[in-house]
Amino acid sequence: MKARVVVTLKDGVLDPQGKAIEGALKSLDFNGIESVRQGKIFDIELAASDRAAAEGLLRQACEKLLANQVVENFRVEIVELS
Amino acid sequence: MKARVVVTLKDGVLDPQGKAIEGALKSLDFNGIESVRQGKIFDIELAASDRAAAEGLLRQACEKLLANQVVENFRVEIVELS
Repeated sequence: MKARVVVTLKDGVLDPQGKAIEGALKSLDFNGIESVRQGKIFDIELAASDRAAAEGLLRQACEKLLANQVVENFRVEIVELS
Repeated sequence: MKARVVVTLKDGVLDPQGKAIEGALKSLDFNGIESVRQGKIFDIELAASDRAAAEGLLRQACEKLLANQVVENFRVEIVELS
């Protein structure tokens, strides 16, 4: 089974990396870009065949390792069942 | 308009960061995880109101700055029209 975990900064949390990219795009003359916020994705392959079990496992993995819930949100998507 | 750009490593390109996360998950007793590959997302707000123009702009931004097309793929998604 293939899953994708998306980790993004919560609203209101400063994102200096995003700001730097925004500045770089402006200096490259990309007009019309108002804001950039960077996040992470994890493309994960699992042996589990049960969708609910896989989602539970990944949710736990996010809580323990992949996301810092103080400043980040996460979302688990099952991309492809097997 | 809100858009999301997803940048992932091409197949076959080594991903040491993903491997490290995979190892960390295994050492935390998350069984059933076969592989992890890490990627980046950029959540971008644009002033453009035309979908095609926005996609074109972001595609150019990817080619020039956001993605290294030698080793990375990118995908542009318009999340919310305004």
